Amino acid sequence: MLKRYLLAPGPTPVPPEVLLAMARPMIHHRAPEFDPIFQEVREGLKWLFQTRNDVLILASSGTGGMEGAVSNFLSPGDKALVINGGKFGERWGKLCKTFGAQVTEIKVEWGHSVDPKQVADALKKDPAIKAVYVQASETSTAVTHDVKALGQIVKGCPETILVVDAITALGVFDLKTDAWGLDVVITGSQKALMLPPGLAFVSVSEKAWQLAEKAKNTSFYFNFKREKDNQQKNQTAFTPAVSMILGLQEVLKMLRAEGLDGVFARQAQMAHALREGVKAAGMEIFAKGTPSDAVTAINAPAGVDGQAIYKNLRVQYGITAAGGQDHLKGKIFRLSHMGYLDRFDVILALAATEMVLKGLGHPVTLGKGVAKAQELLMAK
Amino acid sequence: MLKRYLLAPGPTPVPPEVLLAMARPMIHHRAPEFDPIFQEVREGLKWLFQTRNDVLILASSGTGGMEGAVSNFLSPGDKALVINGGKFGERWGKLCKTFGAQVTEIKVEWGHSVDPKQVADALKKDPAIKAVYVQASETSTAVTHDVKALGQIVKGCPETILVVDAITALGVFDLKTDAWGLDVVITGSQKALMLPPGLAFVSVSEKAWQLAEKAKNTSFYFNFKREKDNQQKNQTAFTPAVSMILGLQEVLKMLRAEGLDGVFARQAQMAHALREGVKAAGMEIFAKGTPSDAVTAINAPAGVDGQAIYKNLRVQYGITAAGGQDHLKGKIFRLSHMGYLDRFDVILALAATEMVLKGLGHPVTLGKGVAKAQELLMAK
Repeated sequence: MLKRYLLAPGPTPVPPEVLLAMARPMIHHRAPEFDPIFQEVREGLKWLFQTRNDVLILASSGTGGMEGAVSNFLSPGDKALVINGGKFGERWGKLCKTFGAQVTEIKVEWGHSVDPKQVADALKKDPAIKAVYVQASETSTAVTHDVKALGQIVKGCPETILVVDAITALGVFDLKTDAWGLDVVITGSQKALMLPPGLAFVSVSEKAWQLAEKAKNTSFYFNFKREKDNQQKNQTAFTPAVSMILGLQEVLKMLRAEGLDGVFARQAQMAHALREGVKAAGMEIFAKGTPSDAVTAINAPAGVDGQAIYKNLRVQYGITAAGGQDHLKGKIFRLSHMGYLDRFDVILALAATEMVLKGLGHPVTLGKGVAKAQELLMAK
Repeated sequence: MLKRYLLAPGPTPVPPEVLLAMARPMIHHRAPEFDPIFQEVREGLKWLFQTRNDVLILASSGTGGMEGAVSNFLSPGDKALVINGGKFGERWGKLCKTFGAQVTEIKVEWGHSVDPKQVADALKKDPAIKAVYVQASETSTAVTHDVKALGQIVKGCPETILVVDAITALGVFDLKTDAWGLDVVITGSQKALMLPPGLAFVSVSEKAWQLAEKAKNTSFYFNFKREKDNQQKNQTAFTPAVSMILGLQEVLKMLRAEGLDGVFARQAQMAHALREGVKAAGMEIFAKGTPSDAVTAINAPAGVDGQAIYKNLRVQYGITAAGGQDHLKGKIFRLSHMGYLDRFDVILALAATEMVLKGLGHPVTLGKGVAKAQELLMAK
């Protein structure tokens, strides 16, 4: 018997309260009983996104939201600036090219955060750039980009919007959508929102809507304008994922009960304890830039295959973590701590990692990383 | 946000597979669809109890099974020998007196196992004793009594049966009902059987049925004979707890997949790791007799209130453990490791206990107990 632990950067564990809410009998999305629920989650999302604008709710994975954030704002031939510091930065480039944009890419070495000055320079050099695409948290490298600083820069460019992939950021650390000038912010349900995969959420600023008016690209399912018009009538353009909306209602209740500051503090404490535990156990954090509080990438110790660590965590100990992608495959492994996880998940992640390393013949003192995390996770 | 961990000696956590099975739509217990399910769980229980006799299934807590094990076998005025080494031994005495039996009690100091010789002597002294009542695992002290040795003794007394409360024993460690001569064995659903509370199970030997023929006590709901007659027609005398039976079907599938030896080895490994971890952290195990692999009683360190440990585990860390009962209140606390728990539950129990002790100002080196458990719980 092996109990299963989900410590990958999404899907993350779904709380029992949310599973129960989602198990409720189906209701019809055009019937009156859906009205107050949808109204409540719309308001809750504005609170969570720290925005006064509508947050669109799409029945898709986060990538659907990303696609819409390209197709609704760019016309073929438009210029886009893409910050590419990992797998998901790369995806922005692919999406922009798919929809015919001219892409300028700022390549950031994996593990580093973008230097905002580079973005400012690129925009100065080419004021025709319509949109800047970035990750608030690049899941593949477990590093953040400073979207607050980027917001300041893009605010000064009247014809340019800032599009933020916040899929592993929103609900993990502070993201002030309106105050920081984040024109489009996208997240998915299966990360800090503690839901199964299946919903994407997108906030759109007034500046971005103006750009959308002029954009000429093909979008039907991910047509944001149609979605907004429907949502303002408390409806969705197409059939919403009803059970997911019921789950979301419960999630928002839980997050509101804790408060945004409480949520961010808990996530930060866990991330900090994991990173310090990893170091105390003699390992190194991969991040050279600002590490993300959503997920931690850890260098496989010299002589140890990162894929073996990841695999043994799963096969021997029932823990689903993540390996490295592309050229980092075998060099790093990743442990997530966002969403419905608590201090004991951090402790077990460290305990199991130590046990796996010892099992692979690496010299490690059992309990050293754990002890550091215990110290940092003591109840006040 | 505090995740909840259930480390009390029952109810224990219910596996997701079992929760799902129990959430199935209701079926009728006199309809044909119930037949193969009930047949399957009846066979599964025989396997689990290591008996060829029927195992009665009662819609009650374990105490209902205990009551029936008195009322069905003793007449008013009959002599009973009760081994009382804790709260549940005490309960045997209360039950026997309620049903008019003359009780001889072997008082065992809390924390000790009964000396089988004492039982042999008592039976030699009074061959009119109809039944010996004992716990295989005394939950209040976390100590076992050697029911194998008692079975040997009682086998030699043609007019006496051995009644074993195995509520925190069956499914935890080896109990060979038939081979060891355990005439009546009782367990409940909410311990090693990983179900919610609500079912009791009782196996009855041929020798015990013969005694039942002569017994004159009042029993209606817990009338074992009526229950057996019904069960042999693949039915129950009264309405069975249908959802619990569906859950039991799933539990038995899981246990069969692991095999009895696998289950016992896992439970033993966890119990051993917890005990050694506790010692490595500088604490003492309460048991002077053979410790139970179901639950561990730990002495509160000098100067620390055991109730404060128990309370802080719950309030600060979301862990439900158990305190001490009666004169042990404040002196011990108990952590369970039976049922749907795995090595990381042992690790988190130790981590949290260390953190609570440190929080209470007790000098403890964080991670020491955890490290010992990690070592003992490494995957082979």
